[in-house]
Amino acid sequence: MSSVETADTVILARVRENHMKILIVGSSGTVGKAVTSRLGSDHTVIEASRSTNPPVDLNSDESIHELFQSIGTVDAIVACTGVAPFKPLRDLAGSDYQDAFNDKVMGQIRLVNIGRDYLNAGGSFTLTTGILAREPILTGAAASLANGALESWVPAAATELDRGHRINAVSATVLAEATGYHAFFPGFVPVAAAYVAAAYAKSVEGTHTGKVYKVEG
Amino acid sequence: MSSVETADTVILARVRENHMKILIVGSSGTVGKAVTSRLGSDHTVIEASRSTNPPVDLNSDESIHELFQSIGTVDAIVACTGVAPFKPLRDLAGSDYQDAFNDKVMGQIRLVNIGRDYLNAGGSFTLTTGILAREPILTGAAASLANGALESWVPAAATELDRGHRINAVSATVLAEATGYHAFFPGFVPVAAAYVAAAYAKSVEGTHTGKVYKVEG
Repeated sequence: MSSVETADTVILARVRENHMKILIVGSSGTVGKAVTSRLGSDHTVIEASRSTNPPVDLNSDESIHELFQSIGTVDAIVACTGVAPFKPLRDLAGSDYQDAFNDKVMGQIRLVNIGRDYLNAGGSFTLTTGILAREPILTGAAASLANGALESWVPAAATELDRGHRINAVSATVLAEATGYHAFFPGFVPVAAAYVAAAYAKSVEGTHTGKVYKVEG
Repeated sequence: MSSVETADTVILARVRENHMKILIVGSSGTVGKAVTSRLGSDHTVIEASRSTNPPVDLNSDESIHELFQSIGTVDAIVACTGVAPFKPLRDLAGSDYQDAFNDKVMGQIRLVNIGRDYLNAGGSFTLTTGILAREPILTGAAASLANGALESWVPAAATELDRGHRINAVSATVLAEATGYHAFFPGFVPVAAAYVAAAYAKSVEGTHTGKVYKVEG
C-alpha cells in the first residue's frame, strides 16, 4: 500500500469516527424525517418539534432557550421548518407577508442567534429554504420572499459567525412525497425526501459554509 | 432609404413619443435624484418623499392612498427607498430585522399593492434592492436579508400582475457619491448614481418584467 493510500485510510477513518450530537428541529415533517433517518445512522440525533418533550416553538426565544437548557450543547443544529401562506398576489395582505417572515425567516434566524451559544466549536447550522426563491409559482409570492430573504442572509451570517461555526441552507424543489402540491409545480421534477436529505448531510458532515444547496430533479 | 430603415425610423419615433407620467418615491436621495434627472428629461416626473407636498410614508397604506388620490393615475412607479440597520451579526436583534423588513421590503411591496390601482395599463414598477443580496459585507446581514427578500419577490409578483403591468428591481453596488460607506465595501468598485439611473430607465422605458438588474462597476 502506498503512503498516500495509507494517509487516505487514516483520514477517512477519522472522518467516520466523527460521531456528532445533532439537533433536528422540525423532525416530524417529510424532510425532517428523512434527515433524521439519514443522520441518525451515524450520529446521535435529538428530534424537536412542537409536539416533542420538551416541545419547541421557534417563534419564542424562551422556548428555544428551554430546549437547549434541556439538551445541552450539540455539534450541529438543523432546521427543517417554516411555513408561508399561499394566496394569489392580489389577496396577499401585509399580515400574510408578516406571517411568512415570522415563521419561516425569523424562526430559523432566532434558532441560529440563540443556538450559537449551545453549538460546540466547529459546529454547523443547516437551514431550510426552497426553490421558490429562484423559480416562482402562482400564489407563492410570500414563500418566494421568505426563501429569498434567508438565501441572502445565510451567506452574510456565515461571514460573521465565530468559533468555527458554519451555516448553510438547503433549497429543494417540490418533494415526490408531497403529491398534493404537484399541480402547483408544473414541469418541476419532484425529488424524494431521502435525496434532499443528502444535502443536509453535506452541510452537517462536510466543511462548507455560506452555501445554498440547490436540490432539483 | 431602404424600407427597413424607414420602418426603424417610424418605430424609433414612436418610442420617443412615449411621454410618460412617472412617480418617483424617494426622489431626494442620491439615486432618486439621478433617476429623476434621467427620466425627467423625456417624461413628466412627480417627485415624492417624506418631505414633499403631499408627503408619502411607505409604511402607511393611508399615506400612499392619499398620494395617489392627489396625483391620479401614472404610467410608471419607481421606488428609490428603503433602509436597514447595519450592526454586527451578534447585535442584530429581532427588532432590527423587523425594521429592515418593514421599511425596505414591505414599504416597497405596499407601494406596489396599492399602486396597481393607480398604474395605467402597460405601466411599470421599478423597485430598489442592492448588491448585499448577493455579496455580503460585515454588519450587513439585515440589509442582505431585505434585499434578498425583494429579489425573490419581484420575479414572483411579475407572474401575477395584470393589465400588462411590469415589475423589475435595480440592485446596484455602492455609489461613488457615498464616500462615507466605501470602507465597508472593500474591493467593490463604486458606480456613479447617474450610471445606476440607466438601469431604472431600462426598466421604465423598456419591455422587461420580473428582472433584477445587477449594476456593478
